[in-house]
Amino acid sequence: MDNEKYERFFDGKLKETVKIKSSLKKIIGDFLRQKGFVEISPVIISPETDPLRHATGRADFEYYGGKYQLTRSMILHKQVALLSFDKIFTFSPNVRLEPIELTETGQHLVQFTQLDLEMAQATREDVIELGEELITHIISKINEENKEELKFFDRELKVPDVPFERIKYHHAYNKFGRIFEEVISQEKDDPFWIVDIPSEDREFYDKEDSSRPGILRDMDMIYPEGYGEALSGGEREHEPDRIRKRLEEQGLNTDDFKEYLDIAERGLPPSAGFGLGIERLTRYICGLDDVKDTVLFPKQPGNVNL
Amino acid sequence: MDNEKYERFFDGKLKETVKIKSSLKKIIGDFLRQKGFVEISPVIISPETDPLRHATGRADFEYYGGKYQLTRSMILHKQVALLSFDKIFTFSPNVRLEPIELTETGQHLVQFTQLDLEMAQATREDVIELGEELITHIISKINEENKEELKFFDRELKVPDVPFERIKYHHAYNKFGRIFEEVISQEKDDPFWIVDIPSEDREFYDKEDSSRPGILRDMDMIYPEGYGEALSGGEREHEPDRIRKRLEEQGLNTDDFKEYLDIAERGLPPSAGFGLGIERLTRYICGLDDVKDTVLFPKQPGNVNL
Repeated sequence: MDNEKYERFFDGKLKETVKIKSSLKKIIGDFLRQKGFVEISPVIISPETDPLRHATGRADFEYYGGKYQLTRSMILHKQVALLSFDKIFTFSPNVRLEPIELTETGQHLVQFTQLDLEMAQATREDVIELGEELITHIISKINEENKEELKFFDRELKVPDVPFERIKYHHAYNKFGRIFEEVISQEKDDPFWIVDIPSEDREFYDKEDSSRPGILRDMDMIYPEGYGEALSGGEREHEPDRIRKRLEEQGLNTDDFKEYLDIAERGLPPSAGFGLGIERLTRYICGLDDVKDTVLFPKQPGNVNL
Repeated sequence: MDNEKYERFFDGKLKETVKIKSSLKKIIGDFLRQKGFVEISPVIISPETDPLRHATGRADFEYYGGKYQLTRSMILHKQVALLSFDKIFTFSPNVRLEPIELTETGQHLVQFTQLDLEMAQATREDVIELGEELITHIISKINEENKEELKFFDRELKVPDVPFERIKYHHAYNKFGRIFEEVISQEKDDPFWIVDIPSEDREFYDKEDSSRPGILRDMDMIYPEGYGEALSGGEREHEPDRIRKRLEEQGLNTDDFKEYLDIAERGLPPSAGFGLGIERLTRYICGLDDVKDTVLFPKQPGNVNL
């Protein structure tokens, strides 16, 4: 270990950032509990998890003959948890063995914390509204309670007006190409939504719009000032035939989602929800370059640290 | 999947239990924040983790040439985090590949949630006091705010008097043998402490009493009514020579704790803290037989579930 790595623990900026992150979890937890959400435990190991659309290595191991993977997102478990409760949330530590190139984005860690929430019988409109309320609440609260810290970061946060602007995926794509998210995020002063994302771009569990095949009933919220994605979510496929069709379209093996499909056969409620990265939120609030500076023990590909 | 597994999600008792667990996290978080504790993120993967004293399988994988293990406890990271903050806590999802026999205890899960906290410059007396305050606070709060749920469980919880009784390990062992914890837990109506635990019984990081070699400056809190261990903790070894000596005594390889030792060389603060199992606490509060009934997605050895 070099001395720099040791000195990092005493860095005033890191300390203030971690304190803000600690406050954010309290603010978010209180907000959701007040709305009737129940906090469930994160699931770290499971035989079935989010396949993800982009190339990500698998962290798995065997144990008494069972094959476990590390959770990449709680999506499947969130849907199932709605059998017990109408509204659930969790702060889920997701492990994604990302390709090394993603380290450069300033937005990726191998282990990160996802606020994952889901509501039974909810529509995309419901979760868009909740997302807007959550983000404006967080910014108001931080402005109110963390004045000194914001001064430390020389950061002013404007409480955005609702509703946020909505931009259709194909408009954005046609105008700016693949990197549209980055470009528009740089341009804007307020968070905005990307809606109507094509199904080949997303995972099988994102619900297809029945009146517009190939288009999903989902959305991403993007931070302004170039800070990129805030949250991603939408309505979910919950009928077993639909789930099977989407798995097949994406070339995935239904055997890898056996128990999930079995539960869907017996009945999953329609639902909507989203996942919001806590390190990315902290990065935006504090105005930092890299998510790794929001964590005491960051994990990046090819960089083995405690 | 059998139908019973699906029906479990609709079980009223499971739902009430999970709601109590959700409340417990809020109560504990608020209590600690008010005392100046900063919440840090759990560390799920790390090259170095708690070796544990009892036989536990290793969940590990390779990634870009780095060898990672799943966290069994945050102990090493807690000590290091005190370089940044004087008081820290986290709700850490620990993964321990326990031997299959431990399933029978009603107290073990392969994945569980540990409230892990640590205070710089603190002594065993400080954390004993904090532990007593925390438990009495939790019981008072639950009695106040969860009256209906307690009635549902037909459970009355007496707020224990402080200080809790302290029982010396060797007295208890001489009287009841290996299973003393179980026996005394059955006998008592209030939580109590086991103190002066011998060093061969515990991990290398538990501090040895300099005036009584072989005896640790640590403690366990045990629930009454047969509910067994509540929390375990104490003062920590923090000087590199002491850490090395204890590792060697326990037949452990110092290479497995390279970065931790490197940090200790540069300086770790003296500290004390404890880990408290959230599923066990929930089991005690609700008066349940098995910790698995506190989790929507329980993981037990040889029992592969979502």
